[in-house]
Parts: sequence; C-alpha cells; structure tokens
Amino acid sequence: MITLYHCNDARSFRCLWLLEEMKLPYEAKIMDFPPRIHAPEYLRVNATGSVPCLQDGATTLNESAAILEYLATRYPSGGLAVARDDADYGQWLNWLHFGEASLTTPLATLMRYAYFEPPERRQPAVVADYREFFFNRLALVESALQQHDYLVADRFTAADISVGYALLLSRLVGLQPDLPPAVLSYWARLQERPAFKAAKQVQKAWSSRQAEAASA
Amino acid sequence: MITLYHCNDARSFRCLWLLEEMKLPYEAKIMDFPPRIHAPEYLRVNATGSVPCLQDGATTLNESAAILEYLATRYPSGGLAVARDDADYGQWLNWLHFGEASLTTPLATLMRYAYFEPPERRQPAVVADYREFFFNRLALVESALQQHDYLVADRFTAADISVGYALLLSRLVGLQPDLPPAVLSYWARLQERPAFKAAKQVQKAWSSRQAEAASA
Repeated sequence: MITLYHCNDARSFRCLWLLEEMKLPYEAKIMDFPPRIHAPEYLRVNATGSVPCLQDGATTLNESAAILEYLATRYPSGGLAVARDDADYGQWLNWLHFGEASLTTPLATLMRYAYFEPPERRQPAVVADYREFFFNRLALVESALQQHDYLVADRFTAADISVGYALLLSRLVGLQPDLPPAVLSYWARLQERPAFKAAKQVQKAWSSRQAEAASA
Repeated sequence: MITLYHCNDARSFRCLWLLEEMKLPYEAKIMDFPPRIHAPEYLRVNATGSVPCLQDGATTLNESAAILEYLATRYPSGGLAVARDDADYGQWLNWLHFGEASLTTPLATLMRYAYFEPPERRQPAVVADYREFFFNRLALVESALQQHDYLVADRFTAADISVGYALLLSRLVGLQPDLPPAVLSYWARLQERPAFKAAKQVQKAWSSRQAEAASA
C-alpha cells in the first residue's frame, strides 16, 4: 500500500498527479501548509516537515522528483518511464532532475521572499534575481518543445510531471503571462489530462470537507 | 567517448569524481568560472552556460545529479548504482536527488549573496536563512550516518558523490567547523578515496598548466 503525505499544490502535487496517471492504489494524507504548524505530528514521519513523504511498504522517500522516478521505474507497466537501453534514457533523467533542481528551487526562493516571509523580511532584489534565473532555465524547456509535444521520447512521461509542476507553481506566483509560447501550449495540454484533473479534484474534495468541518 | 565540461570545484566535480571512481575513459574540458565570461564559446554547447555538461555519444546532459545516475546505471559494472529490484533502490534515488535539490541549492544561494554578488547586492539575511535551511536538511544525513559508513546499501555509491559534493561546497563557504560529527567523519572518509584524490589532481594539474601558460 502506498501512502502519500501531501499539502495542496505543494511539491507533493507531483506525486499525486503521477499516482493518478498510473492508476496505482494509494492513500493521500492531506495536511494544511505548512505541516510543522498545522500537523506537528507529521515531524515524526518526516523530520524536516517538508512534503512530500511517500511510503511504499518499507520504502520511504521525501524528494518529489525521486518519488516520480521511483514509482515510474518500480511499476513500469504505468508507461511513464524511459528504459535504460532507450536512446532517450539520459535525457529523461536530465529533465526529471531539472524540473526540481533548476526550475522549482528558484521559484521556491522567489515565493519565500515575495510572499511567505513577513513584510519586513521580504527581499525584492532576490525575487527579481530568481525570476531571472527561472526564465533563463525555462528557455531550455521552450527550446525542447519547439519541435515536440512532450519533453522527451515523443510521449508523456514522469519528466513532464517534474517540469509541469514548476509551471503550476509559476502560475501561483503570477509568472504565467510571461511564459514563452511553446511552454504555454504545453502547460495547456498538461492541464487537460484526466489524471491532472483527478489530482486537482482530490485536493478540492479535501478542501471542501475541511471547510464543512470548520463550519459545523 | 565521454566528454565532460568542467570548472574546478563546481557541481561538475561530482561527474569528474564519478568518472574517476568508475575508471571510465573521458576527456575533461576545463574552463575558468564562470564560463559565460571566460569561455563564451561554451554557450553553444550549453545555452545557460552552467556546468556540468556531459556528452556520451549522442546523449547530452547538464544536471549533475542526473549525470551521476546516468553513468552509474548505464555502466553498472562500475558498481556505483543500486539495482531496481534492491530493497534500497528508492532510498538510493532519494539521496541522489537530495544531494542537489535539498543540500546544494541552498548553498548556491548562500554563496551568491555572501560572495558572488557585488558588495552592495549582498544579502546577509538571505545568507543566514539558507545556512539554516542547509543545516536543517543536513540533519537527515547525520541521522543516516549514525549507524552506517555510507548513505545507503552499506557501501559507497553514486549517492555519496551527490551528497559528498555538498560537503565539499560547505567547506568552501566556511561551514565545515559546524558540520555534525558523523557527517565530519564521513567527509574525511570520502576525501581519502583514491578517486576523489585523482579528481582533485586533475583540477590541480590544469590549474598549474594555466598558471605556467599565463607566466610564459
């Protein structure tokens, strides 16, 4: 049995989306963000309090891109991995890591100093620096998508979830109007996927139950 | 033939170290940092100007942790991968990603605002924030090393290079005196590896040749 610890639209959305794509059975334990404040018992599951945390039998992981790769390769019938003997294998690994290390971490720094810190600790210069960093790296995505609908192997893979999540985050911080054209069409395609919608619906249903419980 | 584009002690050191561990034939193209200033022709190889870039036949990668994973799994006789059907496979992937996404990116932000930006753009508050972030995540490494000499599978793997590089970087930014004890002993063990020393020697030989050329 797979258990996913999740906060709505946090990095763990990658895992929720993948689980829906692969139609794997799972239990989602959804918490308000940040868990260290709203679900302190979670620190016993994952000491840093970050999400995701995924448990699959005796295996526990907490890096979202590693979870994508783990599930896609451990359960290859889901069709979201690129095989080791495929000519696109290296590129697949590269995009999987790139989505987090090169695209999401600059957005996380931007969000911290634009929104999460109290007003007196906000840093407009840092926000501008990491906005520039993000668009510099995003140019590689635009270039890859000029000739292809997906990043690698001419089909949807776990790498598109790694990078697609950074696009979701870019919308949350208001960068959507500045996304380049091939990236924008790609992002529209990703959002039309039934599994993307199903993952969003899981989040929405949880939020509705929370709101009902609060007003009861 | 494998070609590695490298700057001394940059993230590409991970790849140089791995290539020496695996005794794979390679050519190192070493450049002064940052290449966009000192080797602008490199932008034709890797548009963002970041290192590493690794070419292996028709495959090109530029994410350092992805390169570790690619080489370790593509050439498994090197013994630095954990197999997909091994109980430690998930944990291995997690540390591979963690070394870059959770440990190295906070140090890169710290370095930027402590050293690389001109004095008027330095941000002591940001440096302090990412120092704290680094040590928060490093606690997971300390915990893993309490009972084991290496991070996963009770042997040295590519995951130790991913995390070990963050420790090298932590020393460059003066954090070494504050590393916790199990991490410190681990770092001492890593530095004693013949392949680590060989990679350092490749860097040193290049620097000596550069200095000779400059004084000739």
